[in-house]
Amino acid sequence: MTRSVFVGELTWKEYESRVSRGDCVLMLPVGALEQHGHHMCMNVDVLLPTAVCQRVAERIGALVLPGLQYGYKSQQKSGGGNHFPGTTSLDGATLTGTVQDIIRELARHGARRLVLMNGHYENSMFVVEGIDLALRELRYAGIDDFKVVLLSYWDFVNDPQVIAQLYPEGFLGWDIEHGGVFETSLMLALYPELVDMTRVVDHPPASFPPYDVFPIVPQRTPASGTLSSARGASREKGELILEVCVAGIAAALQEAFEPIP
Amino acid sequence: MTRSVFVGELTWKEYESRVSRGDCVLMLPVGALEQHGHHMCMNVDVLLPTAVCQRVAERIGALVLPGLQYGYKSQQKSGGGNHFPGTTSLDGATLTGTVQDIIRELARHGARRLVLMNGHYENSMFVVEGIDLALRELRYAGIDDFKVVLLSYWDFVNDPQVIAQLYPEGFLGWDIEHGGVFETSLMLALYPELVDMTRVVDHPPASFPPYDVFPIVPQRTPASGTLSSARGASREKGELILEVCVAGIAAALQEAFEPIP
Amino acid sequence: MTRSVFVGELTWKEYESRVSRGDCVLMLPVGALEQHGHHMCMNVDVLLPTAVCQRVAERIGALVLPGLQYGYKSQQKSGGGNHFPGTTSLDGATLTGTVQDIIRELARHGARRLVLMNGHYENSMFVVEGIDLALRELRYAGIDDFKVVLLSYWDFVNDPQVIAQLYPEGFLGWDIEHGGVFETSLMLALYPELVDMTRVVDHPPASFPPYDVFPIVPQRTPASGTLSSARGASREKGELILEVCVAGIAAALQEAFEPIP
Amino acid sequence: MTRSVFVGELTWKEYESRVSRGDCVLMLPVGALEQHGHHMCMNVDVLLPTAVCQRVAERIGALVLPGLQYGYKSQQKSGGGNHFPGTTSLDGATLTGTVQDIIRELARHGARRLVLMNGHYENSMFVVEGIDLALRELRYAGIDDFKVVLLSYWDFVNDPQVIAQLYPEGFLGWDIEHGGVFETSLMLALYPELVDMTRVVDHPPASFPPYDVFPIVPQRTPASGTLSSARGASREKGELILEVCVAGIAAALQEAFEPIP
Amino acid sequence: MTRSVFVGELTWKEYESRVSRGDCVLMLPVGALEQHGHHMCMNVDVLLPTAVCQRVAERIGALVLPGLQYGYKSQQKSGGGNHFPGTTSLDGATLTGTVQDIIRELARHGARRLVLMNGHYENSMFVVEGIDLALRELRYAGIDDFKVVLLSYWDFVNDPQVIAQLYPEGFLGWDIEHGGVFETSLMLALYPELVDMTRVVDHPPASFPPYDVFPIVPQRTPASGTLSSARGASREKGELILEVCVAGIAAALQEAFEPIP
Amino acid sequence: MTRSVFVGELTWKEYESRVSRGDCVLMLPVGALEQHGHHMCMNVDVLLPTAVCQRVAERIGALVLPGLQYGYKSQQKSGGGNHFPGTTSLDGATLTGTVQDIIRELARHGARRLVLMNGHYENSMFVVEGIDLALRELRYAGIDDFKVVLLSYWDFVNDPQVIAQLYPEGFLGWDIEHGGVFETSLMLALYPELVDMTRVVDHPPASFPPYDVFPIVPQRTPASGTLSSARGASREKGELILEVCVAGIAAALQEAFEPIP
Repeated sequence: MTRSVFVGELTWKEYESRVSRGDCVLMLPVGALEQHGHHMCMNVDVLLPTAVCQRVAERIGALVLPGLQYGYKSQQKSGGGNHFPGTTSLDGATLTGTVQDIIRELARHGARRLVLMNGHYENSMFVVEGIDLALRELRYAGIDDFKVVLLSYWDFVNDPQVIAQLYPEGFLGWDIEHGGVFETSLMLALYPELVDMTRVVDHPPASFPPYDVFPIVPQRTPASGTLSSARGASREKGELILEVCVAGIAAALQEAFEPIP
Repeated sequence: MTRSVFVGELTWKEYESRVSRGDCVLMLPVGALEQHGHHMCMNVDVLLPTAVCQRVAERIGALVLPGLQYGYKSQQKSGGGNHFPGTTSLDGATLTGTVQDIIRELARHGARRLVLMNGHYENSMFVVEGIDLALRELRYAGIDDFKVVLLSYWDFVNDPQVIAQLYPEGFLGWDIEHGGVFETSLMLALYPELVDMTRVVDHPPASFPPYDVFPIVPQRTPASGTLSSARGASREKGELILEVCVAGIAAALQEAFEPIP
Repeated sequence: MTRSVFVGELTWKEYESRVSRGDCVLMLPVGALEQHGHHMCMNVDVLLPTAVCQRVAERIGALVLPGLQYGYKSQQKSGGGNHFPGTTSLDGATLTGTVQDIIRELARHGARRLVLMNGHYENSMFVVEGIDLALRELRYAGIDDFKVVLLSYWDFVNDPQVIAQLYPEGFLGWDIEHGGVFETSLMLALYPELVDMTRVVDHPPASFPPYDVFPIVPQRTPASGTLSSARGASREKGELILEVCVAGIAAALQEAFEPIP
Repeated sequence: MTRSVFVGELTWKEYESRVSRGDCVLMLPVGALEQHGHHMCMNVDVLLPTAVCQRVAERIGALVLPGLQYGYKSQQKSGGGNHFPGTTSLDGATLTGTVQDIIRELARHGARRLVLMNGHYENSMFVVEGIDLALRELRYAGIDDFKVVLLSYWDFVNDPQVIAQLYPEGFLGWDIEHGGVFETSLMLALYPELVDMTRVVDHPPASFPPYDVFPIVPQRTPASGTLSSARGASREKGELILEVCVAGIAAALQEAFEPIP
Repeated sequence: MTRSVFVGELTWKEYESRVSRGDCVLMLPVGALEQHGHHMCMNVDVLLPTAVCQRVAERIGALVLPGLQYGYKSQQKSGGGNHFPGTTSLDGATLTGTVQDIIRELARHGARRLVLMNGHYENSMFVVEGIDLALRELRYAGIDDFKVVLLSYWDFVNDPQVIAQLYPEGFLGWDIEHGGVFETSLMLALYPELVDMTRVVDHPPASFPPYDVFPIVPQRTPASGTLSSARGASREKGELILEVCVAGIAAALQEAFEPIP
Repeated sequence: MTRSVFVGELTWKEYESRVSRGDCVLMLPVGALEQHGHHMCMNVDVLLPTAVCQRVAERIGALVLPGLQYGYKSQQKSGGGNHFPGTTSLDGATLTGTVQDIIRELARHGARRLVLMNGHYENSMFVVEGIDLALRELRYAGIDDFKVVLLSYWDFVNDPQVIAQLYPEGFLGWDIEHGGVFETSLMLALYPELVDMTRVVDHPPASFPPYDVFPIVPQRTPASGTLSSARGASREKGELILEVCVAGIAAALQEAFEPIP
């Protein structure tokens, strides 16, 4: 039992012994249930940050909380839009409240270091608000040393050489990576049984006008739901991404929380 | 991919083909992250209803949504109290909002049949409120045929013979079953690697006055966090419970939603 | 004026002289406006806890706040369901907010001891949440010695001999007591003019499946609205219940708040 | 039983037979628990509108709902301020939510005519908001014929001759009537046992600058809590006020609920 | 740049140097977007308090925050009602939240003195609530010396001689001044290009029954939207009002923010 | 009066004649009160989108609503952080509620076309949520043809030739443009009296790690508050930006509000 990095798999005594001094880093994957094209399952945005968390936690001695399974509404330019069947999203206030409640509880346990690992772009600002409201409230309780790191794992893939390996024909931006080479490669490396490359729909990258329209115009999203083709995805690319993310995030957290003895 | 009963493991096209007609039963496990004594992990209230959902879904052709990982605050008489490290709970409004948001989205998908499978007693009324607010809102949208079943799986263990097999020395009520024979037996049948029977703390059943006090008096909860001893737990009992629950719930859902062709 | 135990009947000077030191117990009846069958008025759930509060207050020197007149939505298995005309219920957040606001104000007055006497089963968890939010907020204000007792008066009728006197043909559980022998007997003892025993509808105890359905199936509730027959009710039983409750609660409060000089 | 005008004293069958056609006028007293000087009890703002409602209901065949016992925060210029012990107030959102919830339920019963009888000046705008939110929501439910009258009973004392009888030395405005001649006279007529004229504190009318300060300056409120002296109060004046209010309101309601050509 | 009294026109360094010690008075105009008859623009309730703030700030060395452009829903008896095109109003909770948020931020800056200058009657109670919630929260943060003055500028026009000059034919009360002589005169003095006196609709003063009806009866509001005729308005009256308000408020603020012995 | 494009400067009759048919485009500037360095005023994020709205409105016959003066909390990587004096921000729920309320009101007026012109990056997602909640609610009211365009004016500066003119030494991304060449040039073109180029603090572009930390590390923001130097700003660049934005947005709106085949 005690070897697990997953908080849910510990007893409370094990958790207490790790967390009550405050220096243990806790990691919370923040995901979504969202369509990811014809070739991939819908819990990608939970599975990927959880897998990254697990590997980072193993390297730096952190613990991983149960991930948030539902996220904010899919936006057309980053996730295809919230009109797809299967995409199941929360109102902003619900996501914000969830983050606030969890931080309040972790602080009660004695924890003082939390990483929110985002796996779904649209979550970011509502998570930011949850953090802000929680830290404000903790100050009312006299706690001012609770520190939160918020990151999206893909922001650690920023080495031009790595980008060039992943996108030999040119990188078009994270925006349209939804269900594309990046996420599919990671899934091939981690959960190949949840990907079916024969169903990948090849289409040109989605392009959008420099404004948003509500209600959205569904035809602007490729019919498959992906914003760029996953045709170029491979297990090898996924393993590269994973190593880059895990190494980069582990280093970043040691910097952000130093000293971690 | 297509054999999974888990919504998160389907593509949106697979989900759409199952759900859009409205007759497919969707199941949502509603759990908690809560201490369960010295001998057992803290995600019991997610694992158990998810496992029951999975088996029921396989029998009746239903699908299982990603479970809610965090629940309402542990109460002393049913869960030992919310003062333990590790127990990580939501405010009532957050849980209610989560349920309401998910139902709104499922209705958009075309779904009309939902089962909320509760694994944590304290969730019940806030889930009820989420259902009520969602159905009210759906009526404003002109949808009045969305049907929800709410159940706690343990309520299907009501055959006196089964109770007698589980509790040969007498059953003391579900209230104090927190971390006791019932849940531990189920965990032994399903996730034995997350239980360590050598760490079971043997103590008399917890007893409480006929009122609640806030802030709670922590000493009224046994120091282990369990409300009755898990000493009598066994894999065989767990398998019995599982079969009784799965069979009972499968039958109940066919009755509640009949006809399921 | 000064002999009243009802806060509403005191001047603020009288109240201040009783409450400002913090040791005076304040009692808040938490009721509902809810159908109680063909034979009984709809404010039973306010009248009964108020009457119990009054008698307990007289014994232990407590004060009784104006009762909450509206409660949470009637549930089918405990109150027949919220579909009856006359039943007038609050959303959970409204009830929770009311409790939180009142506690905040009482703390400002200097009070430190509050009893919430529940008269309507469905209120419980939303009252719990109101207490929790209020005590959390009081801690931000530096107040950590405000103590709340929450109770439902029927939980003090637990002596098997008393139960046997009330239910000579066997007790079927509090769940289905809605509008039955228990409440009707109390009303006969306290407010006989609000009961008309000739209109009691005799029917077998309601029985429900081990799950809830929403929207409810109205036919599962007996047409009268009561969940068991009040035929066996009597003034004598009501007086017995009243004495048992008052004595039990008075003793419990002295224990819970001791020492009350 | 059936002669009562109080909804709480009816059975649901009686209520249904009166209300389900929609033409029965329902009346909701909206009060407060608020200090009213050294000479008078704290539930004046509930007792008075309830008494007016009762008498109006008897004249026009209306019904009276259980009154709201707690109101919005006392303001210095109209109620002395919210700093007094005993004054127990709700946040605005709680009062608004209570009104909204009750209207939603009454509409479900088939009611279409509601009078909110305010007894506490500070409630008004939060009640307005509750009405507005409720009617907006009812329109989503397809109900657009629910009609609400909101009134403060003192606004019907507007005949100069009556004013002159009540205030032979000149009327100084409703603002400073808190705990003064008006309310005290009504209490003497209705609940003389809750008034002790020997404790009236005689002081000049309160005067305030043309602005509000927060936190308030407590010294600006007369120490007794009343804003003008109740010395001139009498039972006769109370009976006059009562008759004027009841007659005026009964006439107004008959006008207000007539079809408007 | 530095001569401006408008916070929005300062750099943060200039603002910091003025505000961080806490003694600088900050002024927040609270307005509305609301119809004001056929002859006048719809942002009157923003323009007027902003202009008064500016002049007061110049006299007493205060600063003026960007005004709130949207206010609470127009009520029939004070603003004609919220059914007019153009009138664009907030829910109460939104206005309350805006005030609370701004106060929280000002306190963070070190400010301790704030004036809320209301230009729209209906805002008052929701602003009061925002102030109350903000000051409560500041106390949790250990700040108890933040002082707020709330005023409506017209309350400073209370000298009978001035009233007589403005209303030689008699003053009928502020209630029906909406779009009438008072506001129109001020606009003529300040923004004559936004008034067209040829379009003034002359009508008798509006009169209303002593109760409110919801939904409102639109015919009770004069068709022009004004509650009294602006025919008697003039630039000279506007200049008089402006001088009276500015002088009165400047004096009041110096009094209000003096140390109270 | 009637030539103004500003809604606030119209009478309600003028507004009604323009808006009630639904085809008139309404534009809402969404700004902030936020530090913009030592050399520039704090209401830049209101002034700029308002100016763009005004010019676009003149070209396409639209109207401009009063802008939102306060926005969401400044984030370190896009606005320097919310710890600066003067920066005065709203909670997310307040901004979301404001947008929702305004849309509800505009729909009541008969409007069906709204542009939200964002001037403060951090607002975006809370505005998105406000739009989503409003359109959801409008559907409950039976309105499904209300169309919203959301844009940030800088997203229309995307022509590489224009970028090259603005940033001859290379463009570093919008993220760090806070208070830099882009905004300062626009202010020089529009409000030169609110800029003091002699106070520009020259510093290298801010650089941040690929994660966020809360509470922020203030030292990571340049002490001036700007994220890149405004040294290269000029009136000519501002005029170029303005023309590019106005032309691009005017064209985009004519496209966006065309019937979509």
